[in-house]
Amino acid sequence: MVEVQSHIIIKREGKLFLGPMQIALLREIMKQGSLRSAAQSLDISYQNAWSNICRINEMSPCPVVMMQRGGVNGGGAGISEYGLKIIEEYEMIVTAVQKTINQINVEINL
Amino acid sequence: MVEVQSHIIIKREGKLFLGPMQIALLREIMKQGSLRSAAQSLDISYQNAWSNICRINEMSPCPVVMMQRGGVNGGGAGISEYGLKIIEEYEMIVTAVQKTINQINVEINL
Repeated sequence: MVEVQSHIIIKREGKLFLGPMQIALLREIMKQGSLRSAAQSLDISYQNAWSNICRINEMSPCPVVMMQRGGVNGGGAGISEYGLKIIEEYEMIVTAVQKTINQINVEINL
Repeated sequence: MVEVQSHIIIKREGKLFLGPMQIALLREIMKQGSLRSAAQSLDISYQNAWSNICRINEMSPCPVVMMQRGGVNGGGAGISEYGLKIIEEYEMIVTAVQKTINQINVEINL
């Protein structure tokens, strides 16, 4: 079976801002309330998760993730209102593109 | 400036068949007639290019790239009729998805 998929990337000033991994990370933080638990769920290192969140926060006009470093569980983490808006917007984009992709998957002949 | 981009992936039986890198490699092979020159143009190793082409050929119902290994220039390489069809199909998909993305880029507000 041949299947077309699309990975959506959002750039800011030409640099990667959000992709599928970053959105998955934000969603996990929202669910778990902890950066360490979110990293474990996605099977990425804490350092990788931490540097991604720092980058996203630095690139944003206002914070996306609010973090409290340290403590037994590696500190708590939560998503801001702006972060929720970003996740929602990304999902809307994915849905819109997926409509086009679905049509292509019906027609493709490779 | 915020910009949405889409990376198109084609899978076969759930496994990666073609993505932006593989299509760029096929295009370079078409242009240069050599796998080594194509790899150099894309700044990837010959081994990486070789293993990608082997994988694509193995996954395809008929060969995509015809290779002649060895020689001073690392052997010649050419794209089959089926390979040309694949490149064309991929470009059509990118164009269709890009129309949706262009509309999103007009409307996005992050």
